Amino acid sequence: MRLTNLFTKTSKSAPADEVAKNAQLLIRAGYVHKQMAGVYAYLPLGKIVLDKIIAIIREEMNSVGGNEISLTALQQKDVWEASGRWDDKVMDVWFKTNLAGGSELGLAPTHEEPLTHLMKDFIHSYKDLPVYPYQFQIKFRNELRTKSGLMRGREFWMKDLYSFSRDQAEHDAFYDKITDAYIRVYDRLGLGEWTYKTFASGGSFSKFSHEFQTISPVGEDTIYVHRDKKIAINEEVYNDEVLAELGVSKDELEAVSAVEVGNIFTLGTKFSEPLDLTYNDEDGSVKPVFMGSYGIGPSRVMGLIAEHFSDDKGLVWPENIAPAQVYLVRIGGDVAVKHADELYDELTARGIEVLYDDRDVRPGEKFADGELLGIPYRVTVSDRLIESSQYEFTPRTTGQTDLLTREQLLAKLS
Amino acid sequence: MRLTNLFTKTSKSAPADEVAKNAQLLIRAGYVHKQMAGVYAYLPLGKIVLDKIIAIIREEMNSVGGNEISLTALQQKDVWEASGRWDDKVMDVWFKTNLAGGSELGLAPTHEEPLTHLMKDFIHSYKDLPVYPYQFQIKFRNELRTKSGLMRGREFWMKDLYSFSRDQAEHDAFYDKITDAYIRVYDRLGLGEWTYKTFASGGSFSKFSHEFQTISPVGEDTIYVHRDKKIAINEEVYNDEVLAELGVSKDELEAVSAVEVGNIFTLGTKFSEPLDLTYNDEDGSVKPVFMGSYGIGPSRVMGLIAEHFSDDKGLVWPENIAPAQVYLVRIGGDVAVKHADELYDELTARGIEVLYDDRDVRPGEKFADGELLGIPYRVTVSDRLIESSQYEFTPRTTGQTDLLTREQLLAKLS
Repeated sequence: MRLTNLFTKTSKSAPADEVAKNAQLLIRAGYVHKQMAGVYAYLPLGKIVLDKIIAIIREEMNSVGGNEISLTALQQKDVWEASGRWDDKVMDVWFKTNLAGGSELGLAPTHEEPLTHLMKDFIHSYKDLPVYPYQFQIKFRNELRTKSGLMRGREFWMKDLYSFSRDQAEHDAFYDKITDAYIRVYDRLGLGEWTYKTFASGGSFSKFSHEFQTISPVGEDTIYVHRDKKIAINEEVYNDEVLAELGVSKDELEAVSAVEVGNIFTLGTKFSEPLDLTYNDEDGSVKPVFMGSYGIGPSRVMGLIAEHFSDDKGLVWPENIAPAQVYLVRIGGDVAVKHADELYDELTARGIEVLYDDRDVRPGEKFADGELLGIPYRVTVSDRLIESSQYEFTPRTTGQTDLLTREQLLAKLS
Repeated sequence: MRLTNLFTKTSKSAPADEVAKNAQLLIRAGYVHKQMAGVYAYLPLGKIVLDKIIAIIREEMNSVGGNEISLTALQQKDVWEASGRWDDKVMDVWFKTNLAGGSELGLAPTHEEPLTHLMKDFIHSYKDLPVYPYQFQIKFRNELRTKSGLMRGREFWMKDLYSFSRDQAEHDAFYDKITDAYIRVYDRLGLGEWTYKTFASGGSFSKFSHEFQTISPVGEDTIYVHRDKKIAINEEVYNDEVLAELGVSKDELEAVSAVEVGNIFTLGTKFSEPLDLTYNDEDGSVKPVFMGSYGIGPSRVMGLIAEHFSDDKGLVWPENIAPAQVYLVRIGGDVAVKHADELYDELTARGIEVLYDDRDVRPGEKFADGELLGIPYRVTVSDRLIESSQYEFTPRTTGQTDLLTREQLLAKLS
């Protein structure tokens, strides 16, 4: 993409009311726009990053048998009354609204109830199980505090998968499978090194649920990590009994701040019983479906990555989700323009994503914008470099510039 | 995709309160689920169709220079008060809600105001123009009547592009360009033959706006079509003056019912003036930006296509947006299973999308489901056919079955 075809611009400052570093950087770089506290619009480069995060999660959900759907934001009262969660005192993040001339509606903060209700159309027999519908959907949560930028939104993207199984054994097998898929997601997003499968409190149907927590100084949670075993324990279950059960001792654990980037729950029959989602088993008996839920917030993950991979010059996107791999800077007159145009066409034809700074501005401004935007590799074309048949190649992570021949450059980028 | 991996099922009947044929068929075939009147969830096959429609529109919007973004549903009062459209009497389809402990919010029924406001961050000079941001977004409209299925929703998908130009001349050039892009969209969706660029009333900045209307017996609009010139006139501007201006006479026109599948407007400075979106022109003068808006509802288009391309057996998807090209039916025992499995793998490897009916149900049920689902080509594998090294090949549009060799089959599907 040519920068002159992009309507966004970088800016030197973020809105005064924005206190989170992730949102400050993303706004300054023109990736997002703050509509109000906790509500962000995605601008062209931000939309590309969000879509890349979503694409990675989608691949991994499909790899465990997920069926992608898209549920609705508008919710009717009756289904939520069945589970007891329509009440604002039970679910304290509802946005409620009214149908013209009539009944009260809610904006879905999560989708257990409507999906459980929907599945009554499709689950009748043990032969219909297991199934794994999931979606990427805008969730609405009427949060009182929203000072974490994209990491805690009032309107935000969520991937939520729900499992419908015959019994606990079938559920447990899937639970292990999707745990592995979650680990692959964080690895592919570049967060694997800092992300821990974390034991948290369970419910009536399992001793534990699991969070995926990424170590971060801005984290709102405290977890106790075991770096060798690559597991962690949430504060709420950090006690002697649990430590003994997991075979770890206090002196092996380290208390750190962390951000929850995903969670998986064994729901059991918590929703299927009140909503009457049952199936006929092989022996003719009628049983409630055994459920689980599995969430990842793509917009929260994007905020965390922006926060985690950044320095005083700006963002530093991991390659897998960067909006482009190359930031192509051209310096000079007609010869440089022609040379850079040709390189842009050639890289693009090879399937390499290039953000081409084709603006007529000072080199220093181009370099600074390439750094703020966080594109992994800067390639510079200038009159002087053309004379010596060379390119400057500067990885964003190191800031070290190498001089490369055309062949060396193409090899680096392939 | 194997049918046994899909959680949805077909059903013989739609909900009693669903009166629209498009929604009845889409619900019966398991493409959508009715959450409430005018609010539909997309199930796996419905999501694929919707995504294919969106992908076609996206390609055409990118081809005219569009920058994809994603704005927010939640809206604050002030920006809409500036244009006068916060008032429920002016904009009568608002859903309103409240922030916890505070101010009133709305759910965006359209996005002129927030986008015009947002662009103040990025448009300062004539050098910043023109730009064409667009999005695919859920819109919320608190409609009183919703009996047209997916064609009139309270929560629905909209593609809305907005043009920001220097002056009327620059605007007009883009207006012509996007008109052509719209025509390409309807051609690719299979609706070209029945879709007319229709003259409708304009505003302060242009005599006409333009609708794209598809002739349909369920249409709520009456338009006057000129079949040779491939244009139409909306009822509101059907008068002698307009006829003379367009060089057509009453006896060349035919009154028909039609569904509006898109519309394009010259907004001029209707929003940029009250919201103060201005730019510095080359001569140093400050001018309001000249705007246009361009909408297509992917979910409405999906409903119309379901309604238009259907018969008493079910849906008949155009190839470009069908959830799969081939409905593979297998009849018989182990030999047929092995043969059909191999054909499924081979077609899939060749990039042909196959819905494989691998269920152990009667052949008649498979045939009926393939027809209800509206997949373009049915391919049947059976013990008897394997013996004669043949396949049954049955286009959904004709229902005529041919016997083909493997080579002939692969040639037909390539």
